[in-house]
Amino acid sequence: MDDAITLEKETLGNRAKTAVIDCDVHNAVPSIQALFPYLPDRWRDYVVEHGIKSLEPNYYPRGSSLSARPDSVLPNGDPPGSDLEVLQRQVLEPWNMEYAILNCLYGVQMIHNEDWAAAMARAVNDWQIAEWLDKEPRLRASIVVASQNPEQAAEEIHRLGKHPGFVQVLLMVRSEMLYGKKHFWPIYEAAQQYGLVIGIHAGGVTGYPTMPVGWPSYYLEDYVSQSQAFQSQIVSLVCEGTFQKFPRLRVALLESGFTWMPALMWRLDKNWKGLRREIPWVDRLPSEIIREHFRLTIQPLDESPKPEHLLQTMEQMRSQDMLLFSTDYPHWHFDEKEEALPANLPPSLEKKILSENARSFYRFD
Amino acid sequence: MDDAITLEKETLGNRAKTAVIDCDVHNAVPSIQALFPYLPDRWRDYVVEHGIKSLEPNYYPRGSSLSARPDSVLPNGDPPGSDLEVLQRQVLEPWNMEYAILNCLYGVQMIHNEDWAAAMARAVNDWQIAEWLDKEPRLRASIVVASQNPEQAAEEIHRLGKHPGFVQVLLMVRSEMLYGKKHFWPIYEAAQQYGLVIGIHAGGVTGYPTMPVGWPSYYLEDYVSQSQAFQSQIVSLVCEGTFQKFPRLRVALLESGFTWMPALMWRLDKNWKGLRREIPWVDRLPSEIIREHFRLTIQPLDESPKPEHLLQTMEQMRSQDMLLFSTDYPHWHFDEKEEALPANLPPSLEKKILSENARSFYRFD
Repeated sequence: MDDAITLEKETLGNRAKTAVIDCDVHNAVPSIQALFPYLPDRWRDYVVEHGIKSLEPNYYPRGSSLSARPDSVLPNGDPPGSDLEVLQRQVLEPWNMEYAILNCLYGVQMIHNEDWAAAMARAVNDWQIAEWLDKEPRLRASIVVASQNPEQAAEEIHRLGKHPGFVQVLLMVRSEMLYGKKHFWPIYEAAQQYGLVIGIHAGGVTGYPTMPVGWPSYYLEDYVSQSQAFQSQIVSLVCEGTFQKFPRLRVALLESGFTWMPALMWRLDKNWKGLRREIPWVDRLPSEIIREHFRLTIQPLDESPKPEHLLQTMEQMRSQDMLLFSTDYPHWHFDEKEEALPANLPPSLEKKILSENARSFYRFD
Repeated sequence: MDDAITLEKETLGNRAKTAVIDCDVHNAVPSIQALFPYLPDRWRDYVVEHGIKSLEPNYYPRGSSLSARPDSVLPNGDPPGSDLEVLQRQVLEPWNMEYAILNCLYGVQMIHNEDWAAAMARAVNDWQIAEWLDKEPRLRASIVVASQNPEQAAEEIHRLGKHPGFVQVLLMVRSEMLYGKKHFWPIYEAAQQYGLVIGIHAGGVTGYPTMPVGWPSYYLEDYVSQSQAFQSQIVSLVCEGTFQKFPRLRVALLESGFTWMPALMWRLDKNWKGLRREIPWVDRLPSEIIREHFRLTIQPLDESPKPEHLLQTMEQMRSQDMLLFSTDYPHWHFDEKEEALPANLPPSLEKKILSENARSFYRFD
């Protein structure tokens, strides 16, 4: 998009009528026991015998009132996002959603036993089919994989790649190593074969400090620096030649923020011009590759208090196609529907963000 | 700066007449033997007996034609930046420089023996006084310290803090740990006492991977990700309360780029609002602390090909005071003097960048 975006009066009426595709909704495994029907005897016994209580992440601690919508916690104490009916009532209905993509965050990446990790990922996926996809036609889901062993992850993609409910393979941004490395290419080969998007979500457990000069002290620092992990993954995927090897691969960045993107594009383009001899397979501007292959969800929005700055950022990205709507449910980012998107977006761009970009990228047509 | 910057016609005549303060010029130790007159016998013998050939960095490899100005390499093979007369002819004269600040990059940080590292830092500083500061009144310099041992580094600052030639303490952005940690506070206490700026320059050797999810494969990735290290240091210095403890401390980021700054400010401000209970000593917006305490040099410029985007970035920083002119000599960023600054800067802003911001920040008045 080379034309400047101008501020236009937004009418809430338009937004309410627009079909919405939510690209980041979190369904939650209520307990490890909920996966037992989908686990082979061997691993069910293993979990019981070892007294393993939980692999559920703790993204919405009860004492942190801003972490999840208070009405998303279930009366029986089950975690936010663990009940289909509540999710239908709180997300699908009020937003008039055409589709919502489930990204189930589960601790398979924390398991150092690769076979156990793969079994847990399979169980999560079969649980998603039985408890979510089979019951609600507006839902789509991401295949959970244990990226520790990319060959096993690829096997899981082959097992489920033709299921119409799965549109994406879910990876965590803090990975064992940079995602451009050939180590991970079996995952991309399988994803491309089935036309699945690679979704990279905030979080994860890497063996490395969360900042490139060591461990920070505070969660605030940790969360702010998640965007650095996303930037590193983009740089790695582009520089290693992943998109020359897999030209139809598409990558969605989930809960990444996006206002850092123009500066990254500029810095990468500029230094590619001076150092491109190192990576001769990258035969065009990195920013062009990024615009073609990457998309980013809009929540949480790391925006300026001045609305015109956000529009400048979108214009600097030079694409109207890159942003995808997300609620990040049950994460609590806004109180009113109108706050979920920046005010004063041009209606054509708003429609692209609310649904059309996702429709095209995830091939909902 | 809340007012939008408008594109104005730049006249080269104005630029030529403006006094210039260059905040990032690299003088180079020509060889380890050049430091022998400034080393105690113990350490001179140590270097000779162990056959240590060099601690000079290799930032300008001969085969890489874009790394340094070709005319900065000396006829005798000495490295770029190692001769005062050449530097006077290539930097001070053509730019009509009022002051230039020397940042001598030397491998003291690589030495694991703290006493030896401190001795080498002292030698570099005494060499700077004798060979540069005493000979050229337009030069100022940064005190080289071995940050491995902050107490010893503080001793070196106390030794030289009253010398009028030193205006800054030089640290490398890839540090042993995050610079906000109390481990480093003795350095800041001494710097504040003498009114010295803390200069953090690209480069350095941390024990951690240069990206927060592991080691990249290519120098291009390494260089692009240096800006992540700078962002991490800002976050750490702000969140740890460094500026509450040392309210007069000033930090210059050298060869950092700056177009990533608005997005960092937005992301840090937004998440501080939600998580400030973790760091109650930070009692105002992090972006306000950044605007007060940090400055950034302009070369290398990680800019958009569209000049209006750069002006938007400057406007988004909401300060006209933060950018400092630098040539980054002998690094080769531009062929013509006119290319060193963005074209079409408003004259008042250009004057601030060329000299007034540095004059105020480094207290040249």
